[in-house]
Amino acid sequence: MLWVLLLACPLALAGQSDGLRATGDLGVIIERATGSIQIIETTSRTSLARITGLGDLSHASVKYSRDERYAYIFGRDGGLTQVDMLRRKITNRIIQSGNSIGGAISQDGRLLAVANYDPGGVKVFDARTLELVADIPAKDDGGERSKVVGLVDAPRQRFVFSLFEAGEIWVADFSGGDTPEITRHRDVGRQPYDALITPDGRYYIAGLFGEDGMAMLDLRRPQDGVQRIMDGYGRGDEPLPVFKMPHLEGWAMAGDYAFMPAVGHHSVLVVDRRDWSEVKRIPVHGQPIFVMASPDQHAVWVNFAYPDNDTLQVIDVDTLEIKASLKPGPAVLHMEFTPRGEHIWVSVRDANEVHIYDSYSLEKLGQLPVESPSGIFLTARAHRIGL
Amino acid sequence: MLWVLLLACPLALAGQSDGLRATGDLGVIIERATGSIQIIETTSRTSLARITGLGDLSHASVKYSRDERYAYIFGRDGGLTQVDMLRRKITNRIIQSGNSIGGAISQDGRLLAVANYDPGGVKVFDARTLELVADIPAKDDGGERSKVVGLVDAPRQRFVFSLFEAGEIWVADFSGGDTPEITRHRDVGRQPYDALITPDGRYYIAGLFGEDGMAMLDLRRPQDGVQRIMDGYGRGDEPLPVFKMPHLEGWAMAGDYAFMPAVGHHSVLVVDRRDWSEVKRIPVHGQPIFVMASPDQHAVWVNFAYPDNDTLQVIDVDTLEIKASLKPGPAVLHMEFTPRGEHIWVSVRDANEVHIYDSYSLEKLGQLPVESPSGIFLTARAHRIGL
Repeated sequence: MLWVLLLACPLALAGQSDGLRATGDLGVIIERATGSIQIIETTSRTSLARITGLGDLSHASVKYSRDERYAYIFGRDGGLTQVDMLRRKITNRIIQSGNSIGGAISQDGRLLAVANYDPGGVKVFDARTLELVADIPAKDDGGERSKVVGLVDAPRQRFVFSLFEAGEIWVADFSGGDTPEITRHRDVGRQPYDALITPDGRYYIAGLFGEDGMAMLDLRRPQDGVQRIMDGYGRGDEPLPVFKMPHLEGWAMAGDYAFMPAVGHHSVLVVDRRDWSEVKRIPVHGQPIFVMASPDQHAVWVNFAYPDNDTLQVIDVDTLEIKASLKPGPAVLHMEFTPRGEHIWVSVRDANEVHIYDSYSLEKLGQLPVESPSGIFLTARAHRIGL
Repeated sequence: MLWVLLLACPLALAGQSDGLRATGDLGVIIERATGSIQIIETTSRTSLARITGLGDLSHASVKYSRDERYAYIFGRDGGLTQVDMLRRKITNRIIQSGNSIGGAISQDGRLLAVANYDPGGVKVFDARTLELVADIPAKDDGGERSKVVGLVDAPRQRFVFSLFEAGEIWVADFSGGDTPEITRHRDVGRQPYDALITPDGRYYIAGLFGEDGMAMLDLRRPQDGVQRIMDGYGRGDEPLPVFKMPHLEGWAMAGDYAFMPAVGHHSVLVVDRRDWSEVKRIPVHGQPIFVMASPDQHAVWVNFAYPDNDTLQVIDVDTLEIKASLKPGPAVLHMEFTPRGEHIWVSVRDANEVHIYDSYSLEKLGQLPVESPSGIFLTARAHRIGL
């Protein structure tokens, strides 16, 4: 009788002999075609659970609660789903807009912000209850709404984001409470399409689709306004057709350099972090999508847009040259390093596989069956600014 | 009956309504006088448990398993204790030497290394079982053992450490298996007393007590050997009596600079990260012990040796000047930022208190009663190289 009751105890759900499970080595992989996710762990490299019913995950991203227990999945259809990684189930889910593009979690972990295309703006929720805390319509001076892109968290309880049509960068400061103080930076350039924040949370940099350059805001000196950097880096110089916009959140800072995808070109740009000038343009296999530095900053890994998306390339940070090319399989959509960098996990969508490689030897250590995998997000992101 | 049995279920130990607990917001505070620790959490800022029986913790440090479940406490008496943060109890404990000074955990989380004074050397254990994997006596060319200091983990499954009497830096490479390949760097300078590794795991830098400078090894180019940096920075220039050696693991990298304690001087040295030259010498309240950058690198916090150890000073990274001084109370021994930098926890030993401050407003948010608190170690360290 005791035996039966103990088995029925919710402990058994947690999947270990004593029923307890830590959360530091967990992660979520998006199954983009089926509206589902897998919860994985990186110590033994296994899948722990599959959770369905998350809606349209065709451009989904994930943030984590500060205790690394809850995953927040931002779906393309405006869905915001709270998943309990320990009970391995959906604990809350709302449809907060018609079309959204990602989210962010505040420095203190209390607020979730979502970037919306339709209707254009940012909505901010209580991370625990998913109750609406603030609604920030992204209206230009004429009252027209813009799609919001490049939403990130920043130090001092701020969110920063860009308005695609209006060409503006906004800072929403929640340090004074639930009614944000909004600072607008106008005329930052045409069509900001994505943005990133440096790992120290200081520089917010938006890529411009409509112009040849990038817009940068120093969040420690917002009074200086937005500056143009990388002017004329080549976006307008006989660009190839752009099959897929690169992701600037994958910008890699390594050593003295930042590495960034050149929109519409088969190049990775190397930029000096001190003055944001171009140091080198590295020819690569295709149009880069994600450009990611290893945690030890010895290498930068790059994946590519269709039709070159069967390949990964590895750039040596010391020589600024490509030191290896891999062909994991059809449609390599995303990659994620383990927090201290010994392994890299790679989504190979059309093989329905996630591969795991040794970051140094490039040896393949294993693979997991995953249905149309796209984004891979490990819980260590909970502890990082802007991730 | 069901009610009673469910209460008896080990779930109840985990202290939440459903019995499950994540580990991303946990930490350990050393109670140095009583051989005990407290397990705390930084979300609601509470103590969850007190665990006794850890031996001499007068110079203790903590590392975490990669899943953030197990804390490894390295005691002064050679004790190595494995604590399960979820079951909140000691799960393994060995006395592995007569006198030890700290440890490190390998990049893959499988190996624990301990730096020993007596007998001088490094012992390496299986992190799960605490079984001995490798024993590395720190013998100089004449066969004499040295005290080992400045032990850190480095990328590619390496440990790096310094030999105090021999004046050497050794690299133990476990990438090929449990028998390490040892590389010795001789004649690095007199009496290395502590060391640090930069957050990218590239530069290992040992402070020299017997000479006026520091010894640096580029772990990406070990063939270049150890270089002398910061030669003549002032250690020998009318030094004050040194009451307590500073901790180099607290070296702060912020923006373009590294900030380091000047041994025996009332100064913090600001060093250019590109060429390791001195940029400025900031006069401070006393002899600095820990010099720590906030995660957003906007500020560097400094505590001090006796008799100035009632004070904390905050350096502004942009102006390189002191922007605030706090008097938390008698014997401020250690401080630790929350991973994304919104708060800082401070040990005030002789008040038997740990204080929690807002990192920006410097407002005191709360305090916890802790018996002679010293080191504070949050689980987010599990995800960082060299921490």
